[in-house]
Amino acid sequence: MKNAKISNAVINRLPRYRRYLIELEKKGVEKISSKDFSSLIGYTASQIRQDLNNFGGFGQQGYGYSVTGLREEIDAILGLDKEYRMVIMGAGNLGQAITKYAKSLPAGFRVCGVFEVRKELIGTKLDGLEIHDYENIVDFVEREKIDIGIICVNRDSAQEVADRLCFAGVKGIWNFARVDIEVPPHVALEVVQLSDSLHALAYHMNDIKKRSHHGK
Amino acid sequence: MKNAKISNAVINRLPRYRRYLIELEKKGVEKISSKDFSSLIGYTASQIRQDLNNFGGFGQQGYGYSVTGLREEIDAILGLDKEYRMVIMGAGNLGQAITKYAKSLPAGFRVCGVFEVRKELIGTKLDGLEIHDYENIVDFVEREKIDIGIICVNRDSAQEVADRLCFAGVKGIWNFARVDIEVPPHVALEVVQLSDSLHALAYHMNDIKKRSHHGK
Repeated sequence: MKNAKISNAVINRLPRYRRYLIELEKKGVEKISSKDFSSLIGYTASQIRQDLNNFGGFGQQGYGYSVTGLREEIDAILGLDKEYRMVIMGAGNLGQAITKYAKSLPAGFRVCGVFEVRKELIGTKLDGLEIHDYENIVDFVEREKIDIGIICVNRDSAQEVADRLCFAGVKGIWNFARVDIEVPPHVALEVVQLSDSLHALAYHMNDIKKRSHHGK
Repeated sequence: MKNAKISNAVINRLPRYRRYLIELEKKGVEKISSKDFSSLIGYTASQIRQDLNNFGGFGQQGYGYSVTGLREEIDAILGLDKEYRMVIMGAGNLGQAITKYAKSLPAGFRVCGVFEVRKELIGTKLDGLEIHDYENIVDFVEREKIDIGIICVNRDSAQEVADRLCFAGVKGIWNFARVDIEVPPHVALEVVQLSDSLHALAYHMNDIKKRSHHGK
């Protein structure tokens, strides 16, 4: 595997390649050419070859890709052959939603606890997971070897919570709070702004409506 | 407002501008220059001016933008001055998570019902919302004037559910299912692939670790 820096655009396409490969595996397909893969996934064949060449290239010229081989390579590149231990920060509506969602995650991603500041919630359970006191987060991350902190607190607390998680030693932050946060360079950050996505949907709906009224 | 087609990249930045403007309003800031806005949000001042010029341009040269004025303009552009009626398709883990999440949405986005095929769930409630029979979705969308269908079913059913929603007359689809779906051109589509985001996070965590081992 090459050690060059891969662009974010490529990284963000890999999970999508992986989803299509899993579908192909289910259907019993063993080999696929970049041309057939292209008609399936909607990227050009040359884009696909270029993306996969970033990782040293799989498949032999003219023989296509081994579906399972390629999926396993992508698993290894993404680090999906490891286990990740996670905590959910905040037991409000968003934290409850993500706790529920996390039940449908693959086995490699495991939620080990939920953290809250509201005393009346501490010690109760959320979907079978104990709600812990936020005051104990640093000890917990160290003791339980937590890799990922999922931020579901309100916007005013998000940066403080992220700072404390990074201090405690998490390697990644998955941010759902409605605010941009900063993390030190040795910590990875991924952001999901669900309301931004919904607002973009609203825009496109109105745009389509406006265009149809203008006779386009 | 101009009627030219605005690029998706610009549309996707508008909700973020809006979040920062709301923070400024809360702090009582009335005017902001593109330079100050730039240091706050991290885009260049020229990028900000260019983005906002797409919509006819706000603010007078040298006077900066009116914070509330700009926020209201963005609300209107995104269509956030209207009400959107939504249905959640699927009452499994993902549907339960999104139903919970929807409670924290602004008033303009309202979930009117949840739909399921599993007979034992139909007629029960999920967070105060009635679970309806999927068989009645077309009638419901027409009668209740539903604008948006939120797809939370499993990957094998997602396209069929989207087809039926589009047939029934929704104007937008918000897809959370782990599969790509297609919609007719008069329907807007926004996709949230939470697991793709988590996989990208795993990649970045491993990449940072690898780089630090290589002494970089």
